[in-house]
Amino acid sequence: MNSYNYTMLCDYYELTMANGYFISGKGDEISIFDVFFRTIPDGGGYAICAGLEQVIDYIKNLHFTEEDIAFLRSKKQFSEEFLAYLKEFRFTGDIYAIPEGTPIFPGEPILTVRARAVEAQFVETFILLAVNHQSLIATKANRVVRAADGRPVAEFGSRRAQGSDGAILGARAAYIGGCAATACTISDREYGIPATGTMAHSWVQMFDTEYEAFRAYCELYPTNATLLVDTYDVLHSGVPNAIRAFKEVLLPKGITNCGIRLDSGDLTYLTKKARKMLDDAGLTSCKIVVSNSLDEYIIRDLLQQGACIDSFGVGERLITAKSDPVFGGVYKLVAKEDENGCVIPKIKISENAAKITNPHFKRVFRVFDRSTDEPIADMMCIYNEPPIDETQPLEIFDPDNTWKRKKVTNYYLRELLVPIFKNGECVYTSPSIKEIQAYCKHEVDHLWEEVKRFENPHRFYVDLSQKLYDEKIRLLREKGGQR
Amino acid sequence: MNSYNYTMLCDYYELTMANGYFISGKGDEISIFDVFFRTIPDGGGYAICAGLEQVIDYIKNLHFTEEDIAFLRSKKQFSEEFLAYLKEFRFTGDIYAIPEGTPIFPGEPILTVRARAVEAQFVETFILLAVNHQSLIATKANRVVRAADGRPVAEFGSRRAQGSDGAILGARAAYIGGCAATACTISDREYGIPATGTMAHSWVQMFDTEYEAFRAYCELYPTNATLLVDTYDVLHSGVPNAIRAFKEVLLPKGITNCGIRLDSGDLTYLTKKARKMLDDAGLTSCKIVVSNSLDEYIIRDLLQQGACIDSFGVGERLITAKSDPVFGGVYKLVAKEDENGCVIPKIKISENAAKITNPHFKRVFRVFDRSTDEPIADMMCIYNEPPIDETQPLEIFDPDNTWKRKKVTNYYLRELLVPIFKNGECVYTSPSIKEIQAYCKHEVDHLWEEVKRFENPHRFYVDLSQKLYDEKIRLLREKGGQR
Repeated sequence: MNSYNYTMLCDYYELTMANGYFISGKGDEISIFDVFFRTIPDGGGYAICAGLEQVIDYIKNLHFTEEDIAFLRSKKQFSEEFLAYLKEFRFTGDIYAIPEGTPIFPGEPILTVRARAVEAQFVETFILLAVNHQSLIATKANRVVRAADGRPVAEFGSRRAQGSDGAILGARAAYIGGCAATACTISDREYGIPATGTMAHSWVQMFDTEYEAFRAYCELYPTNATLLVDTYDVLHSGVPNAIRAFKEVLLPKGITNCGIRLDSGDLTYLTKKARKMLDDAGLTSCKIVVSNSLDEYIIRDLLQQGACIDSFGVGERLITAKSDPVFGGVYKLVAKEDENGCVIPKIKISENAAKITNPHFKRVFRVFDRSTDEPIADMMCIYNEPPIDETQPLEIFDPDNTWKRKKVTNYYLRELLVPIFKNGECVYTSPSIKEIQAYCKHEVDHLWEEVKRFENPHRFYVDLSQKLYDEKIRLLREKGGQR
Repeated sequence: MNSYNYTMLCDYYELTMANGYFISGKGDEISIFDVFFRTIPDGGGYAICAGLEQVIDYIKNLHFTEEDIAFLRSKKQFSEEFLAYLKEFRFTGDIYAIPEGTPIFPGEPILTVRARAVEAQFVETFILLAVNHQSLIATKANRVVRAADGRPVAEFGSRRAQGSDGAILGARAAYIGGCAATACTISDREYGIPATGTMAHSWVQMFDTEYEAFRAYCELYPTNATLLVDTYDVLHSGVPNAIRAFKEVLLPKGITNCGIRLDSGDLTYLTKKARKMLDDAGLTSCKIVVSNSLDEYIIRDLLQQGACIDSFGVGERLITAKSDPVFGGVYKLVAKEDENGCVIPKIKISENAAKITNPHFKRVFRVFDRSTDEPIADMMCIYNEPPIDETQPLEIFDPDNTWKRKKVTNYYLRELLVPIFKNGECVYTSPSIKEIQAYCKHEVDHLWEEVKRFENPHRFYVDLSQKLYDEKIRLLREKGGQR
């Protein structure tokens, strides 16, 4: 699975441009591209980055097969010299990235590629696809999990995912964002995301009566019996039959750990009634699981209304990030190196001010409050600025309103972009998926509460060093448009 | 690519239920499941079905590897007998489906599986995933293409797709829905969807000046030069530089077939101004391509405002169906066969009336007006009802308001569900992707205009035969819930 070759999963223009750089002698010019995003999905205060492990697999496996090259030749747009070069094509450059599970903010590089122009251009499509998809789902999952307020959330969306990887890697991203489990079996085998499940309505329909279906299930899976109680009538049939099956099959074995699932109807009303029926029957440790087009808003509402819910199964609205299903990461040239290795910053200007890029080969630091470990701001610097002396106060300012300034003291810095590839060699070992999940939780727990609101969160500061700011303004004046 | 084994891409409960059917002696009971959907995305009047070819590949390749079985054994929930059975597991049943590219409507089966319970249950997740994903994108693409009103639409969304298959098969589905091309190279190689592309901003930035970048591109790709004119300033730099490059490189070669692309700013204003500049320079055959978060609503607005646009590149809002990114196909047991082969209808009742199923092993017919070839209604019948005599008037009625009746004359019928697998053997040959696209266009062209409105379309009639209706009501009364 990990070794699948996605080399040809590229926008066709990556190939025509790569051929063009190659032919026009620019193919070997060292180019620096940043991946960054402009807006946080759902109007949230932060996103969670994910997908790096798949980028690493992709880069390691990058190569064109004979069939790929024959196919490209048939398009009659590529020079034979270029096609010959593709036979030996490998990624030989450097990649820096923010580790998976880190909260990230608009405008800062989350991944930087420094490589020959042909290579750096070529990898654009897949890197964006991997980072955009998994960051989208990890970000959404993190919202859903926060709404559930400590109750486990299982990702149940494979059947509504946008394609196989939407399901398989969506489950992985959801786990990074905080989900406890997935329904997707292959994500367990491939990525160690715990697979779980209850039963479908078909199980109930397959038996002559609902009670027989429940009884058979309890006998088969006595330690793992979560019965779906809404095939016919929750309160008049489903819950009474479940109680009977639990009492007749499980209690005699001394098992009290069981559950029911509701997948339709008014979940607040039905769970309150069901809870009472279960408690009255002595089944106080029977858990209630709910599903049915849930998201963070519905979960918050259910809990505010006092619904009696122990855990959630969240499907289509999580696996597609339904309320805002696009993570808009882009890949932009920010610098080139001249023949002497001197870095020349590049900027892209646009009629849309938001589409103007932050130029230059950059480093990104997160500034933490030393007394609370809470992040105060992120700061981008030019790659070769002298190190910041953490014993001295640090002045940060808003790059859009430069008169808004703040002196930070008692802080420490963490560099966000870490080396992933150096000269084409992978120099990074991904943490385990459990470690990534735990790291994500720790980082989110330490964010300011104001940044974590679902609506109108406080904007986290993403600043430029004075040097980088000055350089950006210089380039804007030099290349800038007219009104 | 087509032979990838997605057997383990299943919800975990398919396996626990399959094990349960197996153990409790129900594994070989012939069961009939329908795939159907309940609501049309974006409030549209019809959807386009797609994904069948991937279902066929999946069913053909269905098998568990030794590693799969070892993994399942490690979960300690499956009996050894079942695991031994999985070693030989193949699909041996029947599948019927509506061909790809057909307009489909809520409530009718778009795919029916008739197989042993273990097999029929197991294939649920992947079948839904494939049909839901591609039907979603084909339906969205069809809306976008209709808004473009004859101008070609290229699918440009790979980088924002939800995973690799979201990009690769999304491009396939978009083509079925009417897109002319894709940016995704691998979709061309694998599925014959024409790959196309222009250039990125990085191409322009890679050169010392915009003019040099344009000139180099025109020299490289003289017959295929679409220049991206918004890297710095569309009207003061991009378009003038493009005109100069066209005049200096292409016109001397007698080439007038060229283009510019705009990816930002006010597209109506800028395309009108750019058109005038191009025409004034004698470049009347230069095409204008636009992109930038387009969808059917923005395209319709642009054209209504008189924007000068020859073709569209549509990315994230198409490849994720952003405005409504879930196609809610479900998979429900509708009948079982007893030991004598007698079909016993099954129904699922729900607190949500919309979640009640249409029971029974069914056939579906589309009723066409013989004089216009326009479809009038779809009608579901029980599998063994006597054939409808097309020379006699056909009475159809609204199953929700049975007093609304209509006598149809001068009609003909087409059976929608066609055999795909019989006893595990594939008996269907998929048309070529071009044929599917042409068929889809033909079918949509013949739908009533009222059904094709973007907002508040007329609801197409999906009816039950009198026999099927009576049977459904009988089952509802028998199993029905209380208020």
